Amino acid sequence: MGLFTKDIGSMDDLFVHGLRDIYYAEQQIAKALPKMAEKANDPQLASALRTHLGETERQIEKVEQVFRLHGVEAKGVRCQAIEGIIGEGEHDMGEVADAEVRDAAILAAAQAVEHYEMARYGTLAAWAERLGRTDCATILHSILDEEKATDAKLTQLAEAKVNRRAH
Amino acid sequence: MGLFTKDIGSMDDLFVHGLRDIYYAEQQIAKALPKMAEKANDPQLASALRTHLGETERQIEKVEQVFRLHGVEAKGVRCQAIEGIIGEGEHDMGEVADAEVRDAAILAAAQAVEHYEMARYGTLAAWAERLGRTDCATILHSILDEEKATDAKLTQLAEAKVNRRAH
Repeated sequence: MGLFTKDIGSMDDLFVHGLRDIYYAEQQIAKALPKMAEKANDPQLASALRTHLGETERQIEKVEQVFRLHGVEAKGVRCQAIEGIIGEGEHDMGEVADAEVRDAAILAAAQAVEHYEMARYGTLAAWAERLGRTDCATILHSILDEEKATDAKLTQLAEAKVNRRAH
Repeated sequence: MGLFTKDIGSMDDLFVHGLRDIYYAEQQIAKALPKMAEKANDPQLASALRTHLGETERQIEKVEQVFRLHGVEAKGVRCQAIEGIIGEGEHDMGEVADAEVRDAAILAAAQAVEHYEMARYGTLAAWAERLGRTDCATILHSILDEEKATDAKLTQLAEAKVNRRAH
């Protein structure tokens, strides 16, 4: 995309472009998660990130399934949004010497990633429905639910830190 | 930040860094929203974006209030995440000739922005509480609620398009 102007002519083109964007994003996330888990001090945080890595690998397969159902080749397109989100997270983590403060920075980076995914899968599911592709929408909704559950788990970890201080 | 290694030594440093990040991000969003509203075809979408511009300007003031309460100077730090999210949105919008498809791309870009803000304000409110700054947390929670309401309004607009096709 982007080599020629006005490449996206229809809702179908936009949907395929969105799939390619999240396909690339998921691959970048799969590369970033092990590095984040390795830098995490809290075993619960490290474990949540490793669990999410396994989930991310299955989500990549699910996105490939959506490509197949829609009859287009599974390929990614560079997504500067996820590059920015991951890049910023890695930069911030690198700035922190203290293990507990670094955990907070890692949690924040992971939640920014989750929210990006939630926005994209919500949009893609709506577009699939708009195109009458309920088969694709069902898969995209199931990924969206997983991302929401991961974000809720990360929020719980962040709030546990607050409560530990407060009591 | 970032000129020297390990600039973030404490939770307080991380909180201030996060405030600077969102302060810069909100300013970029305030610059992007009028361009998005101008390119929107659907009057409801254009109106939602313009309403959110006014809200964003008030949120910038609220973040300045948090800086003041916390006794630090209000200044931004370059946020590559929001630059990536906005840059990708502007790129995608530019690829679309059809007005209705472009509206879908604009909605998607706006929701990606909202989700970034939701992630950041959720994190900042938790950090403020962890630091015992309930005064700052209250303001940050109020901004978070506004971002959630804007995202819900955008979801409603996206779903209205689906329903219009489906019935």
